[in-house]
Amino acid sequence: MDRLVASFKRLPGIGEKSATRLTFFLLSAPDQIAAELADALSRLKRETVLCEGCYDLTDRSPCRLCADDQRDDSVICVVEEPGDLQAVERSGQFKGRYHVLGGALSPLDGMGPNHLRIPELERRVRSGTIREVIFATNPNAEGEATAGYIAERIRSNGVALSRIACGMPLGGDLEYADHVTVGNSIENRRKL
Amino acid sequence: MDRLVASFKRLPGIGEKSATRLTFFLLSAPDQIAAELADALSRLKRETVLCEGCYDLTDRSPCRLCADDQRDDSVICVVEEPGDLQAVERSGQFKGRYHVLGGALSPLDGMGPNHLRIPELERRVRSGTIREVIFATNPNAEGEATAGYIAERIRSNGVALSRIACGMPLGGDLEYADHVTVGNSIENRRKL
Repeated sequence: MDRLVASFKRLPGIGEKSATRLTFFLLSAPDQIAAELADALSRLKRETVLCEGCYDLTDRSPCRLCADDQRDDSVICVVEEPGDLQAVERSGQFKGRYHVLGGALSPLDGMGPNHLRIPELERRVRSGTIREVIFATNPNAEGEATAGYIAERIRSNGVALSRIACGMPLGGDLEYADHVTVGNSIENRRKL
Repeated sequence: MDRLVASFKRLPGIGEKSATRLTFFLLSAPDQIAAELADALSRLKRETVLCEGCYDLTDRSPCRLCADDQRDDSVICVVEEPGDLQAVERSGQFKGRYHVLGGALSPLDGMGPNHLRIPELERRVRSGTIREVIFATNPNAEGEATAGYIAERIRSNGVALSRIACGMPLGGDLEYADHVTVGNSIENRRKL
């Protein structure tokens, strides 16, 4: 029991009390609940691999999206993390391929270009089928720097480079938006 | 005392307890505090007028922005409310003139075109000095409908019509943004 409490306590957001509560729950619950949790935990790391196409986390490589031959091979959407890939995919506005960098440039945190999957992206771009690379890194300092840095490195390959739009979020209110976002939305206005 | 408590209670966010607390505070505070509040209250409605240029709230017409001859007469930024005007002004990205509509189209709330200052905008656009009208109504259903409706009404005047950019707010995270905002940011991407 003490070993399980200690193991639960190492997870984020779980303290002594929650860990004890979870342990007592498992003791009184049907055996199957603990067994399935144990099985899922031991398979998590063993069976999750990086997709050799887009570097997303997947249970088989190539992943479902890379294996789908209905998608557009000529556009790559570059994201920082697997969670960002899922966000773009949920939007339903992108039907091409993805490339997960594995983070963003952040010198203060020790994240340099060597920590990101940039050579892998360069190789994909040089393959010749790519017409456009969309940088969907996050709209903050690290994401902007990452998009700018990689754009310069792959620019000479003759592909179109683009950046996701910055502006007012849908349902937002100008009155309560920060002034940089309002400024961006004026600066990047589009023709009606 | 009861009259003041009752008056305070009519303000939004102030209940019985707060109203009583404010009243007792004013009783024990220096006379000047209550006198200045009374003076500011009685002047608020008497001295606040609509600017005859942009229809912003102001203490003198034309307002400070309309009277400023350093601003660009050829661009009008159309906003719903005075608070939105201030938001655009804070962004520092706009140096032209403003037009406050006084709301947005909202049939369910009984707000039709007749409730907005659209004829006043048409008159300004027809004056001939305007090259561009930027619609900075809010990025929600009412704001979009308002921009679209007015754009159709003034389109024939040969001025450029534009809409503020919709996309990811600065500092936002794709993973936690709603899917329509992520979709907009992909759809409205810009060339790098």
